[in-house]
Amino acid sequence: MTPASEEKETGRTEAFSDGVFAIAITLLVLELKVPHLSGAVTAGSLARALADQWPSYTSFVISFFTILIMWVNHHAMFGLIRRINLPFLYANGFLLLVVTFIPYPTAVLATYLETPAAPVAGAFFAGTYVLLGVAYNLLWHAAIRGKGLLRRDVTPEIVDACTRRFRLGPPLYLVATAASFVSVFLAVGICAALAIFWAFTGRLI
Amino acid sequence: MTPASEEKETGRTEAFSDGVFAIAITLLVLELKVPHLSGAVTAGSLARALADQWPSYTSFVISFFTILIMWVNHHAMFGLIRRINLPFLYANGFLLLVVTFIPYPTAVLATYLETPAAPVAGAFFAGTYVLLGVAYNLLWHAAIRGKGLLRRDVTPEIVDACTRRFRLGPPLYLVATAASFVSVFLAVGICAALAIFWAFTGRLI
Amino acid sequence: MTPASEEKETGRTEAFSDGVFAIAITLLVLELKVPHLSGAVTAGSLARALADQWPSYTSFVISFFTILIMWVNHHAMFGLIRRINLPFLYANGFLLLVVTFIPYPTAVLATYLETPAAPVAGAFFAGTYVLLGVAYNLLWHAAIRGKGLLRRDVTPEIVDACTRRFRLGPPLYLVATAASFVSVFLAVGICAALAIFWAFTGRLI
Amino acid sequence: MTPASEEKETGRTEAFSDGVFAIAITLLVLELKVPHLSGAVTAGSLARALADQWPSYTSFVISFFTILIMWVNHHAMFGLIRRINLPFLYANGFLLLVVTFIPYPTAVLATYLETPAAPVAGAFFAGTYVLLGVAYNLLWHAAIRGKGLLRRDVTPEIVDACTRRFRLGPPLYLVATAASFVSVFLAVGICAALAIFWAFTGRLI
Repeated sequence: MTPASEEKETGRTEAFSDGVFAIAITLLVLELKVPHLSGAVTAGSLARALADQWPSYTSFVISFFTILIMWVNHHAMFGLIRRINLPFLYANGFLLLVVTFIPYPTAVLATYLETPAAPVAGAFFAGTYVLLGVAYNLLWHAAIRGKGLLRRDVTPEIVDACTRRFRLGPPLYLVATAASFVSVFLAVGICAALAIFWAFTGRLI
Repeated sequence: MTPASEEKETGRTEAFSDGVFAIAITLLVLELKVPHLSGAVTAGSLARALADQWPSYTSFVISFFTILIMWVNHHAMFGLIRRINLPFLYANGFLLLVVTFIPYPTAVLATYLETPAAPVAGAFFAGTYVLLGVAYNLLWHAAIRGKGLLRRDVTPEIVDACTRRFRLGPPLYLVATAASFVSVFLAVGICAALAIFWAFTGRLI
Repeated sequence: MTPASEEKETGRTEAFSDGVFAIAITLLVLELKVPHLSGAVTAGSLARALADQWPSYTSFVISFFTILIMWVNHHAMFGLIRRINLPFLYANGFLLLVVTFIPYPTAVLATYLETPAAPVAGAFFAGTYVLLGVAYNLLWHAAIRGKGLLRRDVTPEIVDACTRRFRLGPPLYLVATAASFVSVFLAVGICAALAIFWAFTGRLI
Repeated sequence: MTPASEEKETGRTEAFSDGVFAIAITLLVLELKVPHLSGAVTAGSLARALADQWPSYTSFVISFFTILIMWVNHHAMFGLIRRINLPFLYANGFLLLVVTFIPYPTAVLATYLETPAAPVAGAFFAGTYVLLGVAYNLLWHAAIRGKGLLRRDVTPEIVDACTRRFRLGPPLYLVATAASFVSVFLAVGICAALAIFWAFTGRLI
């Protein structure tokens, strides 16, 4: 392939991934259901019903920013990529699989947050992020192991910094998963703290 | 970053946002449910059931044009932008969050429009637009505070005109929110009037 | 605006419209529900339940090709356009509104095709196409009335041919709507015949 | 049409198809439903309910990679195409129809995998891939029969290799369909083996 067609190929994979991110982030609103009032329909009962949905709103906002931050990081990684190969393509596919899955454990968490089943829901939620961390590491390793995938101006120092940064994900999310059995709010708090970390370091790549 | 890569980055953020707008606007139809007739299935009963869904059709059309107008305004603002930074990126994310949320209060309003709970549903609907107005102001302030984000040909006069225009949003939607407790139709009417205002002034930017 | 930015603007509106068409066409599958067997779960009962869904499959295929054909025609019209203005933008928005609405009357038709309510369901289905025909005419008139919207090489002969072609839509779909009260299959047949007509004349523009 | 506008046309059809693939792959997660616990809500009952959904997770992962692999193959075929005509456009539309349909038989299979109806569900699943194989052959034949659709550097050897490769699909999926009446796992296994075959030969085109 010529350099021009390689760049086109990489651009298309990125555009396809962007589409998946955009759709996944927009589908989140489908988890919000119009409340069905069981008793009398009054202003007060609707206000209470809307307020009682706070776990759903919270999970909507968390999922939204999580997927947004993943998109920013995905973009930053593609900024280092010059061309792609089949292993990179399927590693990217695995990452997208986990991204599109995110709304599901978030909905499970929102449903069971205030029940005795909360520790399991929280561990399922945080455990998905372990998988996400693994997916980012697989993608990054496909990028650095493949021949000529990185741009020429990506120095070994940048590669090492990225490798160290991505390696943090899986063990820290495993800690969050275990922490859910102590307190589901601790688990969610660790995930939120990590989200902020990824959010403000992603563009440093 | 080189000017070319900055422009590419801005283009991608705009393309991602366009994707979110396109999906949000298309998901609206999922709120329309095929009526399930409780009594005998006759031509008359289906016709009545379809006609009885007018609040759903109205809310579908309102949400559709609202998101379309927001897209036109979003485009107009990006037309003034030369490059983006992290605060702008996340302010844009917050705006997209509110955009994808719009169908939910619209569905709540359609469900409770003809019930005693209408004032709360209307306030929830108009209150979301307060948030939307805040999001546009945050995005615009990220654009004018960031160093070198605006295009060089954007004069201080254009900046001031935009600032004044965006500043109108939150207080006027707060009035609509309060007006819902007088009449839900007044609240929706103010929102519709503002939509028409945004629709025909957005491209003047 | 410079010609380059005008072309960019037109390209973006087309890309946004393409996104809406792509999403609308893909959402159709959500209308297909996994059958819930009421009696014993056997190979025979599942086979029967799947076969009994033929109106849903038919409506899925009809809606799919209808939206595909509308996309081809939309593309063909944009091929004549050099720049856009606000009335064109909102006429295009109205067309997209009807496009995203299409799955709903199709689902109503699939649900009530084999009931006494079929004439109303068929009229609702065909009536939506009247609206679609009106939307295409509005868009086309916005294109020819606006100053400098058409490409310079679009001759008056091409304009007249297009005007005549689009003008056929609303009255013929009105006939189909009325025909539904004679036979729902006649109404669907006229719509299908018109779809084939649009399909193979759209690129002649 | 000029070569430039032909390339643009082909690019748009590919972009539209990419959008459909991206949406279809992202909609898969909607099949995963938050479990509703019938008895007491405990950590154990939620863990069991989540574990009991393994057929849904499996079908999610299978559908995801199937659509991803189809996307890779679709891209590879478009890499040989220089311009398109109407038959190619509608053959591509038929392929997209089958692609967007994929989640439905997958959901039917997940629902009935552990019931006596499994052979029918498996045959419905594998039968859809027969249709998919037919769609790829139709698209490829539209590409080679149309005048000047292939790029000039596509040799007869490449054409023959592709023709032979695509011809494998329908008969092998027919075998999988029949095999479902022996064992549903055999049917799914053949489909999975074929998916791996398409996955690693698609870019050889």
